[in-house]
Amino acid sequence: MPDRAALGGRLTLVIGGARSGKSAHAERLVTACPAPWAYVATAQAYDDEMRERIALHRSRRGEGWTTIDAPLDLVGAIEALPDGRPVLVDCLTLWLTNHVLAEHDVEAECRGLADVLSRPRGPWFVVSNEVGQGIVPDNALARRFRDAAGRLNQQVAAVSDTVLLMVAGLPLKVK
Amino acid sequence: MPDRAALGGRLTLVIGGARSGKSAHAERLVTACPAPWAYVATAQAYDDEMRERIALHRSRRGEGWTTIDAPLDLVGAIEALPDGRPVLVDCLTLWLTNHVLAEHDVEAECRGLADVLSRPRGPWFVVSNEVGQGIVPDNALARRFRDAAGRLNQQVAAVSDTVLLMVAGLPLKVK
Amino acid sequence: MPDRAALGGRLTLVIGGARSGKSAHAERLVTACPAPWAYVATAQAYDDEMRERIALHRSRRGEGWTTIDAPLDLVGAIEALPDGRPVLVDCLTLWLTNHVLAEHDVEAECRGLADVLSRPRGPWFVVSNEVGQGIVPDNALARRFRDAAGRLNQQVAAVSDTVLLMVAGLPLKVK
Repeated sequence: MPDRAALGGRLTLVIGGARSGKSAHAERLVTACPAPWAYVATAQAYDDEMRERIALHRSRRGEGWTTIDAPLDLVGAIEALPDGRPVLVDCLTLWLTNHVLAEHDVEAECRGLADVLSRPRGPWFVVSNEVGQGIVPDNALARRFRDAAGRLNQQVAAVSDTVLLMVAGLPLKVK
Repeated sequence: MPDRAALGGRLTLVIGGARSGKSAHAERLVTACPAPWAYVATAQAYDDEMRERIALHRSRRGEGWTTIDAPLDLVGAIEALPDGRPVLVDCLTLWLTNHVLAEHDVEAECRGLADVLSRPRGPWFVVSNEVGQGIVPDNALARRFRDAAGRLNQQVAAVSDTVLLMVAGLPLKVK
Repeated sequence: MPDRAALGGRLTLVIGGARSGKSAHAERLVTACPAPWAYVATAQAYDDEMRERIALHRSRRGEGWTTIDAPLDLVGAIEALPDGRPVLVDCLTLWLTNHVLAEHDVEAECRGLADVLSRPRGPWFVVSNEVGQGIVPDNALARRFRDAAGRLNQQVAAVSDTVLLMVAGLPLKVK
């Protein structure tokens, strides 16, 4: 096992805007741990744009990865993984979107996830989007989503050992 | 009196996106000073969504707080407070919104506020939103508001002793 | 010649949201080098709002500046400048917008620009916008632009010696 402190501890949150290099940076962090690695994908391919993005992300990952699809049951997917397996969850924002679209109890889901992530396991690397630094959205659904995403980021950051803000592909240490 | 340097000095600006934990963090900073504390609220309850948000913020604050409503005359509200009273202003972005909607001279209002905040008093803690890191808004009013909000943040940051950027509930020291 | 390390090295990227003080800060960095300075402007005056903004930026710059307009051929403009001339490019986001609107091969243009900027010359100071930290835009063109802008920022940051994130007019060192 590598030194956990050197890897940024048990739980690392990689947060950033669109195309800020979050996934690529998180992949570098995970692959600094010994293989095999688990990739927990939350994306659902609703349309061609999303299918293309998923294929691109998959093609960048090489040997040594197991991919688990968990668009909704992220808690179950994480719990089913063997102890000590380095895990990349990509990403919380899509997982939240899927629950919002399914009209699930988003607050309960977020509490459940934060609870699992606070357990003394890992190393886990979780990717999430910063979506709250633009102008207030016109429509109420977008505002509610933005609020839920911000609260989820806070909950996960609170139980993380390391929080990195990505800016133009570069990590800025927040915690 | 606590050590002002330890509290981040006379004027602290807490800036961040939506649901980034700005208000909660600023409240922690204020309540590290001895009570009583003044809460200067700039929110106006235009609709149920806003009424709910205001009620939530109020319920989080406990004993020791005096709340002053100042949707427009923030300068007057600050000037009327007794010397040495720890003050939380929450938030500049709503205050600016109120002046924009009232079609006041926004530049003059911002200059007046920055002038008051630059006086050697405090400890003052001021919350503001970062709204300029999204895509350029479609409508001209949103663009003008975004520009005015960014300029106001710059003016207040320039006279602040401490500026904190909130990311997922965590403060990142900018100044 | 001033000490290049003290100036932040050969290539400095100044990134930030709207009205975050990017241009003003980059101008201060350039004018800390000995005159004459080159200002490479990528803005195109499509409308009155933009004309006004360009005029404001120009009026802020005083003696010692040469202005070169390069809405599309930024690579050519940079290559044509004499060695050792301090250069301010303001800004990459408008240059990218111009190429997107002209329906050029944006990926090839970005690769070409990153290639020129990676050469051991300078001191160069490049301004760019963070546009990816808001809610996902409704329309597909805005999403594609946001992706392209994010990728361009990553490419330029990767070859930069110094990267500064502007927050309320203050620089936060990212690299």
